[in-house]
Amino acid sequence: MALIVQKYGGTSVGNPERILNVARRVIATQAEGHQVVVVVSAMSGVTDSLIKLSREVSPNPSEREMDVLLATGEQTTIALTAMAIHGLGHKAVSLTGAQAGIVTSEVHTKAKISTITPERVHEELAGGNIVIVAGFQGETADGSITTLGRGGSDLTAIAIASAIKADLCQIFTDVDGVYTCDPRLVPSAKKIGEISYDEMLEMASSGSKVMQSRSVEFAKKFGVIFEVRSSFNQNPGTIVKEETDSMEAVVVRGVSIEKNQAKLTIANVPDKPGTAARIFTTVAAAGLIIDMIVQNVSVAGTTDISFTMSKDELEKAKAALAPIVIEVGASALHAQDGIAKLSIVGIGMRSHSGVAAKLFEALSAGGINIQMISTSEIKTAVIIEEGRIGEAAVLVHEAFGLGQ
Amino acid sequence: MALIVQKYGGTSVGNPERILNVARRVIATQAEGHQVVVVVSAMSGVTDSLIKLSREVSPNPSEREMDVLLATGEQTTIALTAMAIHGLGHKAVSLTGAQAGIVTSEVHTKAKISTITPERVHEELAGGNIVIVAGFQGETADGSITTLGRGGSDLTAIAIASAIKADLCQIFTDVDGVYTCDPRLVPSAKKIGEISYDEMLEMASSGSKVMQSRSVEFAKKFGVIFEVRSSFNQNPGTIVKEETDSMEAVVVRGVSIEKNQAKLTIANVPDKPGTAARIFTTVAAAGLIIDMIVQNVSVAGTTDISFTMSKDELEKAKAALAPIVIEVGASALHAQDGIAKLSIVGIGMRSHSGVAAKLFEALSAGGINIQMISTSEIKTAVIIEEGRIGEAAVLVHEAFGLGQ
Repeated sequence: MALIVQKYGGTSVGNPERILNVARRVIATQAEGHQVVVVVSAMSGVTDSLIKLSREVSPNPSEREMDVLLATGEQTTIALTAMAIHGLGHKAVSLTGAQAGIVTSEVHTKAKISTITPERVHEELAGGNIVIVAGFQGETADGSITTLGRGGSDLTAIAIASAIKADLCQIFTDVDGVYTCDPRLVPSAKKIGEISYDEMLEMASSGSKVMQSRSVEFAKKFGVIFEVRSSFNQNPGTIVKEETDSMEAVVVRGVSIEKNQAKLTIANVPDKPGTAARIFTTVAAAGLIIDMIVQNVSVAGTTDISFTMSKDELEKAKAALAPIVIEVGASALHAQDGIAKLSIVGIGMRSHSGVAAKLFEALSAGGINIQMISTSEIKTAVIIEEGRIGEAAVLVHEAFGLGQ
Repeated sequence: MALIVQKYGGTSVGNPERILNVARRVIATQAEGHQVVVVVSAMSGVTDSLIKLSREVSPNPSEREMDVLLATGEQTTIALTAMAIHGLGHKAVSLTGAQAGIVTSEVHTKAKISTITPERVHEELAGGNIVIVAGFQGETADGSITTLGRGGSDLTAIAIASAIKADLCQIFTDVDGVYTCDPRLVPSAKKIGEISYDEMLEMASSGSKVMQSRSVEFAKKFGVIFEVRSSFNQNPGTIVKEETDSMEAVVVRGVSIEKNQAKLTIANVPDKPGTAARIFTTVAAAGLIIDMIVQNVSVAGTTDISFTMSKDELEKAKAALAPIVIEVGASALHAQDGIAKLSIVGIGMRSHSGVAAKLFEALSAGGINIQMISTSEIKTAVIIEEGRIGEAAVLVHEAFGLGQ
């Protein structure tokens, strides 16, 4: 008998029929002799509707009250899921985040889990119940409702799995697992059987939409092995775990693509101490989320500083930085969109040389120009013209033999 | 400075615009120098939608989970109401039933309030907040979410008013107060300024839809004076309180009408001990809600037993009683719908004679036949043909001078 945590996202519980599908899957898991804890998200669309409703009563709703409001989404799903399991003749009990013992920090709308007291979960499991826990939510030590922010339901599942020492944590979603590249761009993309936490983190931060980084970080920190798999079929998914020696044999685990990027270049920045700090303090103060930063070696006392961001941020970034360009004595601010990021990720890079060269060659062979390059220990990322990203993905995927 | 509880029903908070209207009213009350606790229902239609959703996952949803589900309705409203107040520049905090300290019995979907620990409410008031409490809900001593059943939000308001020793409890609804009769039937109907708990109870149980009996009973038990008034205008409403000497001067406070009634008569029931018990045990076991019961004096060893109910119950009642008719040796079961009940209510009846006679005369003058009569200490009710109920209401209302 294993103790299994299963998490189902908003699409998987998107309507009553899908909730019944989840109920059947959960019952089947229990019927194999396991104890099951199920973490569910709000039904897809519900959170957005609630946010819309809040805007109709207040332009800038309080975050405490936003949490009270949004928490109703998952509370609705836990009740419906428990009812569906009852309707199929099995025992289940729903628990809100608070009832499941999830205590968080007081930072509303993006609270951090501080402790989990899983006694109630254990009791209900001991009573033969399938336990349905509301994802994305918890309460503060003094009993205010909180939510965990984006990707919060995954985090709930992994944190609960850690707290109850589950044997397995399964993250059910609408894709079959983590792929070597987006199959819509690269038809030969393959599902990855096993991936290390670090690779998963790099994939997440470079465009793979499967999971938010924070859930992976939490899993890594507490050593929670989890599987990402589909709720719409029975295919095995991708296991995410600590790296093993055999993982290192693979140089590149996958190729991540991020479209809709934009680039800002501040030209001819006087090469003085403190200038970069001044620029990026402004960026941070404006709440801009930037990605790659590249500064060329200074020539003749000036340098160009470029950085990338989501295209949506570009106008805000231009407005924030225009005064700074003058202040630091730079010559101009160049904005460019229509670019995309391609990243190759793999822990094998640490011990294999020539990986970047192979990437550049593959792109060069296709006549694709590289505009920016950024590297980390297990990732190499390039910025290219957005219109050629599909072609680039196929070339790179092929060059590293990922489709085999 | 007074401490005021205001309750707003589903229609009053039916959309974002109406929630903003409630926010403005509450703020205006606070601006007069009062402390305000607001109890809100689910937005109109929400509870029905949730019930519908539950039926789509299970034919017979568990009551515990139904409470988890339904409680989201009021939780949504408290968050939106608090946000609306913030948006208008004032301090407010939302509390679920559990957070407001409402502890109930464990009877899901119709829990009884067992205790209220209002410390949190007092704290938030002391902090200058308008406190928004979710109506209709509480939690059991061991932390399961419960709901209070029909009229539960009124009950929450009155129970909170009692627990915090409020100076005033205002029940805001979509009517101006309690009327001497339904103004749609009797254009000369007047709003009643003050009414005793007992009269309000009789009005509620005889068709007046303003409030459920249990909330009035609770108010009577704990001496909570409350006012029923409209959230759509500034008119004073009806004050409900313990009877005063001056109230007795009025013989009839109002006329209640209940349409869509039906009657079952069991004819020629052998007049033996235990027969009526057998019949009404069956009625209870079938979960039928019956209203008036009339048994004529036995003639020649048999008697007729008639009782009324909502027309919707008639088929169920016939099915349940058909076997009993044979078992007790009665001759037939006669069913009749198309009838209505007219009741006159007033504590003054206790000390004034001739009230029933005046009622019968008024109807007789209009040529309206009385099919059944039932009386209590402060009420006289008659069953008449449904098609003539409007006419009867006008005649009776006039006869007792209620339109003046």
